[in-house]
Amino acid sequence: MPLMSNSERDKLESTLRRRFFYTPSFEIYGGVSGLFDLGPPGCQLQNNLIRLWREHFIMEENMLQVDGPMLTPYDVLKTSGHVDKFTDWMCRNPKTGEYYRADHLIEQTLKKRLLDKDVNPQDMKNMEKILTTIDGFSGPELNLVMQEYNINDPVTNDVLDALTSFNLMFETKIGASGQLKAFLRPETAQGQFLNFNKLLEINQGKIPFASASIGKSFRNEISPRSGLLRVREFLMAEIEHFVDPLNKSHAKFNEVLNEEIPLLSRRLQESGEVQLPVKMTIGEAVNSGMVENETLGYFMARVHQFLLNIGINKDKFRFRQHLKNEMAHYATDCWDGEILTSYGWIECVGCADRAAFDLTVHSKKTGRSLTVKQKLDTPKERTEWVVEVNKKFFGSKFKQKAKLIESVLSKFSQDELIRRHEELEKNGEFTCQVNGEIVKLDSSLVTIKMKTTLQHIREYIPNVIEPSFGLGRIIYCIFDHCFQVRVDSESRGFFSFPLQIAPIKVFVTTISNNDSFPAILKKISQALRKREIYFKIDDSNTSIGKKYARNDELGTPFGITIDFETIKDQTVTLRERNSMRQVRGTITDVISTIDKMLHNPDESDWDKSTFGLSPVKI
Amino acid sequence: MPLMSNSERDKLESTLRRRFFYTPSFEIYGGVSGLFDLGPPGCQLQNNLIRLWREHFIMEENMLQVDGPMLTPYDVLKTSGHVDKFTDWMCRNPKTGEYYRADHLIEQTLKKRLLDKDVNPQDMKNMEKILTTIDGFSGPELNLVMQEYNINDPVTNDVLDALTSFNLMFETKIGASGQLKAFLRPETAQGQFLNFNKLLEINQGKIPFASASIGKSFRNEISPRSGLLRVREFLMAEIEHFVDPLNKSHAKFNEVLNEEIPLLSRRLQESGEVQLPVKMTIGEAVNSGMVENETLGYFMARVHQFLLNIGINKDKFRFRQHLKNEMAHYATDCWDGEILTSYGWIECVGCADRAAFDLTVHSKKTGRSLTVKQKLDTPKERTEWVVEVNKKFFGSKFKQKAKLIESVLSKFSQDELIRRHEELEKNGEFTCQVNGEIVKLDSSLVTIKMKTTLQHIREYIPNVIEPSFGLGRIIYCIFDHCFQVRVDSESRGFFSFPLQIAPIKVFVTTISNNDSFPAILKKISQALRKREIYFKIDDSNTSIGKKYARNDELGTPFGITIDFETIKDQTVTLRERNSMRQVRGTITDVISTIDKMLHNPDESDWDKSTFGLSPVKI
Repeated sequence: MPLMSNSERDKLESTLRRRFFYTPSFEIYGGVSGLFDLGPPGCQLQNNLIRLWREHFIMEENMLQVDGPMLTPYDVLKTSGHVDKFTDWMCRNPKTGEYYRADHLIEQTLKKRLLDKDVNPQDMKNMEKILTTIDGFSGPELNLVMQEYNINDPVTNDVLDALTSFNLMFETKIGASGQLKAFLRPETAQGQFLNFNKLLEINQGKIPFASASIGKSFRNEISPRSGLLRVREFLMAEIEHFVDPLNKSHAKFNEVLNEEIPLLSRRLQESGEVQLPVKMTIGEAVNSGMVENETLGYFMARVHQFLLNIGINKDKFRFRQHLKNEMAHYATDCWDGEILTSYGWIECVGCADRAAFDLTVHSKKTGRSLTVKQKLDTPKERTEWVVEVNKKFFGSKFKQKAKLIESVLSKFSQDELIRRHEELEKNGEFTCQVNGEIVKLDSSLVTIKMKTTLQHIREYIPNVIEPSFGLGRIIYCIFDHCFQVRVDSESRGFFSFPLQIAPIKVFVTTISNNDSFPAILKKISQALRKREIYFKIDDSNTSIGKKYARNDELGTPFGITIDFETIKDQTVTLRERNSMRQVRGTITDVISTIDKMLHNPDESDWDKSTFGLSPVKI
Repeated sequence: MPLMSNSERDKLESTLRRRFFYTPSFEIYGGVSGLFDLGPPGCQLQNNLIRLWREHFIMEENMLQVDGPMLTPYDVLKTSGHVDKFTDWMCRNPKTGEYYRADHLIEQTLKKRLLDKDVNPQDMKNMEKILTTIDGFSGPELNLVMQEYNINDPVTNDVLDALTSFNLMFETKIGASGQLKAFLRPETAQGQFLNFNKLLEINQGKIPFASASIGKSFRNEISPRSGLLRVREFLMAEIEHFVDPLNKSHAKFNEVLNEEIPLLSRRLQESGEVQLPVKMTIGEAVNSGMVENETLGYFMARVHQFLLNIGINKDKFRFRQHLKNEMAHYATDCWDGEILTSYGWIECVGCADRAAFDLTVHSKKTGRSLTVKQKLDTPKERTEWVVEVNKKFFGSKFKQKAKLIESVLSKFSQDELIRRHEELEKNGEFTCQVNGEIVKLDSSLVTIKMKTTLQHIREYIPNVIEPSFGLGRIIYCIFDHCFQVRVDSESRGFFSFPLQIAPIKVFVTTISNNDSFPAILKKISQALRKREIYFKIDDSNTSIGKKYARNDELGTPFGITIDFETIKDQTVTLRERNSMRQVRGTITDVISTIDKMLHNPDESDWDKSTFGLSPVKI
């Protein structure tokens, strides 16, 4: 499948604007870059996408949906690592005050220099290497490239300031005193982790299970361009699937075993060769160890199925594995579902194994256990270092403080206990800090020893496999992949949206004005409404050709036209958007044909479904 | 209908928490007041509510949905009046640093004092008057009451600081430079107004039409209490219906004419009498002028229908008209749809006539016309003051500045022209400011006169009727109104949600464990999924009674139980939640009975629908 040409992209964007699929927000105020409004057809498409996502993931897997606030207190995001690590590197033009995101600036500049005829082969190879691995660069590495390649302001050619790190979260304050610092969430995931205990409880303590959230998240992009693909406020859908770290198999993996997916592995990327993904079944990929485990593989296959269902072109999709240093601070393996558009490959879905990172850090910070307690069928022996206090002396020596000291001792890790045991052996005593105070303990007060106990319960922090969707980006990719231009004299554009995604399913119109038509229109409307088919009446005073063109631009798959024959015999024409073919039948037959195609995926084929209707010659 | 007792409310809240309908956000971090998470059944209920709202309003009226960002630049909200007027009055305890919202503190204190046995009749009357009209009090008025009634900190009795005004918007900054000040939107309405021209265009220039948005809005409450009813981040659904200011009739008003609604008018409230609303048809209310116009009345009736459909008790609802000084700065008439809960009357839907306020101020600020151009069937004569320049002298005198001066003159209002005309008559000249410079004009350069022209187009700024829903509050009211306690020995609680609102429609369970049951479970699951009925399997190892109780607490209307007879004859029992009655039939008959009741509102009656099945004696 070829990429869209520039003129096609212009045509696409102007169609999207003219039909109000979307528009820059606050446009009459000059707009704010990175913020967009969806208009009526855009909203309807987004609603359809959300509904299909819920059916494909939440309903099908009995996921537990959670809906939390975007306002998130500082502490939560400090713990999760976002305060320190959710940053981009940027540089400023000291003369104009303009800011640039460093990695994007480097990419843009090097891509331009590669087109230069005089570039020597070694330079070319170096620059290509940078471009394929830049996603994994640290700040100092980016700075080095900036210097080595003398990268200045792309507009003014001014020398830029050195790189600085910029946190991408929007900050605000909660409450009248202004003392509670908060951010707008950068992802919905944290809200799910914090509810882990409640989710586990309503799942009756059983694991694995998944939670899911659909909602807006925020990212204060440094200088957002490329329209809907890089925005500051975006709709996400995220799944957190909690699994036993010792068993990441998936009960339904055999159902997707043979799903064939284009995979661009880490090894392939690091080889520096031409970057063509390898087509492989997910079964093979997991078997060979390329994809880390079954659960990750299962979701990759399900994501693939989902994207093809909603109109993504199968030849413009790949899963790309993250490079080692590109992965988020929490991930152990990560595959990005990338979609090819006229802007290049766009990351739309991330499938990451976050391991036990989030639950561990939140549990540590809050002191609340976030674990699964599994009853063991056969109890297990466990040998470990323990500390025991001599109750008699301990209590009388420390009085009210005894309990607190005991609790501090009980929290020592195995390593800490070993160290204390050695001290005790060597010096006969050791010290520990309790509430800032140094407490001395000797062997008359405590014993540290190895002890073997029988464990009836296995307690563990689960791992998390996370498929995370940028729904806004996916919407843009649907536009890009479904936009087509008719090969005729007028070369008009239309959207070949799948039936389930199309904003409006049917438009109903009349060939001209006639006193008998309104009653027929009403009858058809009622019949469509009864079957819950979303339709629009196009009763404008334009030619039938213009009406067809307008509704094609909205991607409306079916058109019903009332004409003079309808008055005589209650027949209407039914037009299909992509082929522009028309058939004729009674109102009842036409509507039930549409109903069948819409509500039964097996019967969406036009030829089969309209078999009983009469073809119309145009 | 009696209000809930305190013990019932405790039972309600503990059920909501235990079943994870909702929970305080960030609970393991100690929580943030005014922020809540919805858990799985809460999300599902919210999804159902949104879907029903879209069907009842957007689909039924062909409204144009818009989805815009929450981040909103300063200028937009400065123009809309929110920077200056979206405030509450608060006072601070200088010793503890605690903040109180002044009106709530007064209400709370006076309500307590009214319970005092020694209060004299005149004081009582005064306090009651304050309580019924406090929503309209200005800051100084609140201050006066605080002083007159010696209102101190309710906990410590410390004297409080004088009132200050607090803006309720969350502030943040957009972009790397941090120079673009922004707020989280306090309502979705502004995003719709700013798109007026685009909406009008895709509606083919025709008016009236309505736009709608569903999304989160924010309000930095001073000290939020009362759980889900007063939150800092909330889901809204807002409709902006644009009408001709000279014609606020509604084409479908006759369809709702006889809808009977309890109305508490402004006059009734100001009378100081017992505040019982008057039941009246909306037809009468509009006819008598109590409700300002048909469109406002139409929406009030539609709101009323909607709320009763989703489970609000008709005897615990009223529309209360805003007092004159209580209305928002933009409104000309406003009725609050209020719902009675154990927390008192709660404002859940506002129906306001915002007149032309918003479009006017945004148009003025941006210089962009936000008007409707109506082609007149018969052109109209229009006589008005005009200014004409003497091109010959004017151009040679002012040179490059001529155009600018002419444009300033062309923007004079009728009043300004009359004033200038008088000056010109009296002094032979007048002055005007052009870019800060004073320009003198005499009668050789300009003429000001009355002129009659023929108008073919009428251009006007439309008025806006706005029904605005707090969906989060409505959800709490549904909980409150649907919670019931069985009159039996165990007095267990359950939710009598309407079928369309219930989070889960069917639970499927088995009487015990048996090797034949899983296959039957699978068969039933497939049949339910095919009919798009949302169900849960309850295969826990508990007694059937406990399973019923648990699913009653989730408000699941139907239960299918597989027992040993099922193996023999493929029959199952079907249980109804409210009556706990059971019938028996084949799997096919039971599922098609449920399907009928769920998808056809006319067939939701249990007795009629289960007529063909056999009653089970329990």
